[in-house]
Amino acid sequence: MTGKVYLIGAGPGDPELMTLRAVRMLKDADVVVFDRLVSDEIMAMCPEGAEQIAVGKCPKNHLVPQERINEILHEQARMGRKVARLKGGDPMIFGRGSEEAAYLMALGVEVEYAPGITAAQGASCSTGVPLTHRGLATGVQYVTGHRQADKVLDLDWKRLADPDTTLVVYMGVANIGQIAVGLMTEGLSARTPVMAISRATSAQEERMVSTLGRVAQDCREAGLKPPTLFVIGKVVSLYAANPQDLAVEAVSANG
Amino acid sequence: MTGKVYLIGAGPGDPELMTLRAVRMLKDADVVVFDRLVSDEIMAMCPEGAEQIAVGKCPKNHLVPQERINEILHEQARMGRKVARLKGGDPMIFGRGSEEAAYLMALGVEVEYAPGITAAQGASCSTGVPLTHRGLATGVQYVTGHRQADKVLDLDWKRLADPDTTLVVYMGVANIGQIAVGLMTEGLSARTPVMAISRATSAQEERMVSTLGRVAQDCREAGLKPPTLFVIGKVVSLYAANPQDLAVEAVSANG
Repeated sequence: MTGKVYLIGAGPGDPELMTLRAVRMLKDADVVVFDRLVSDEIMAMCPEGAEQIAVGKCPKNHLVPQERINEILHEQARMGRKVARLKGGDPMIFGRGSEEAAYLMALGVEVEYAPGITAAQGASCSTGVPLTHRGLATGVQYVTGHRQADKVLDLDWKRLADPDTTLVVYMGVANIGQIAVGLMTEGLSARTPVMAISRATSAQEERMVSTLGRVAQDCREAGLKPPTLFVIGKVVSLYAANPQDLAVEAVSANG
Repeated sequence: MTGKVYLIGAGPGDPELMTLRAVRMLKDADVVVFDRLVSDEIMAMCPEGAEQIAVGKCPKNHLVPQERINEILHEQARMGRKVARLKGGDPMIFGRGSEEAAYLMALGVEVEYAPGITAAQGASCSTGVPLTHRGLATGVQYVTGHRQADKVLDLDWKRLADPDTTLVVYMGVANIGQIAVGLMTEGLSARTPVMAISRATSAQEERMVSTLGRVAQDCREAGLKPPTLFVIGKVVSLYAANPQDLAVEAVSANG
């Protein structure tokens, strides 16, 4: 008797942005294996009596290695349990959900998915800044600004420096200076608007509007910490269209 | 006394992929203004007694012009009603939601958002093909393959032809031949895997796996119609990782 694994996108933070499917799967779980980016409000929705296993952090602040997470999921499913694998955002976008699914399916474990609202969409919902907009952005691109400590950030700046596409950088706060220089070197204006947003849609949301030329300094001064998302492009100019949200300096959404 | 407009992403088709927030707003509406891409199952969730206004098609099969949709939303809100503006996918991604919001906010109408699972995520959920995957795609890009009848499709093929990024083309079925040639001319291999998927996650879902070199012909032979989404890139090779879904020819997900 084998259980199954529900690969669940918990969305950007606000529990109300979970899908009906994500909630149904979570409520059905015997055990919840969760990342550190899943908010407390969402963890409060776990079924009473379900075991909770944190894999976002070990006691010494190290991440549980991916290989060990895979094993935990398999061990739990092999016991016949229904396992909720709960991840921030969408498991299929920078979530390594497909790695876990491939591992489990190769071992004969059934996997079901619930997609999640990804952080870029959460930022859009919370600020009113769209990801595409006629005349401002014909498309949108998501990249990650994070690399392992021993690797260089080798993004293709020429391809990313497109004034007609919205560029969303996940996990980029440590490297935003390098990212901004790369984009400006390939022709994006230093005046290109940039929005930085941390924990969009959660109670801890913080946001800042800046420009490509100033964003690294503004981030340092505002003390923005991971997880921070950057939305780069002309669509950010629509932020001021909502008078309640008008801001060119660091502001807290809940301040 | 002014009402308000809820700008709601209905997601890709399956009602279970709506967010809790989208459902709450829909249930609270006095009137629902909806697009043709919103599924019947989702329309069945509208509150009893709420007026329903279709703006996806006029009697003669023409779309209601955007300017008229804006006016309808304003007229309804000015009557003090709570207006659900229900769109397929996410209103902030190819949904023109931000155009409607800007129009309404300039007239003093309050607007609230509910993001939606976009079709690319629906396709991913339904097929198991991720949008990013370590070693296969470091990012993902969404573009539209649709242009007005009198305009040329002027996508930047050089920028889009990146073997290390997943390219998702919305509304591209009419132009997929031109898109494939553009990408191959700029260096993408004719063997690059492509997945075409219509109405992902809905009861009418159809999918096909092909290659860049063959996709136009395969689409014609399979008779795929709009709305069809194309996922182009190495991540599609993971489709076969799910033995239940193994397919290289046109298949219906519900056949």
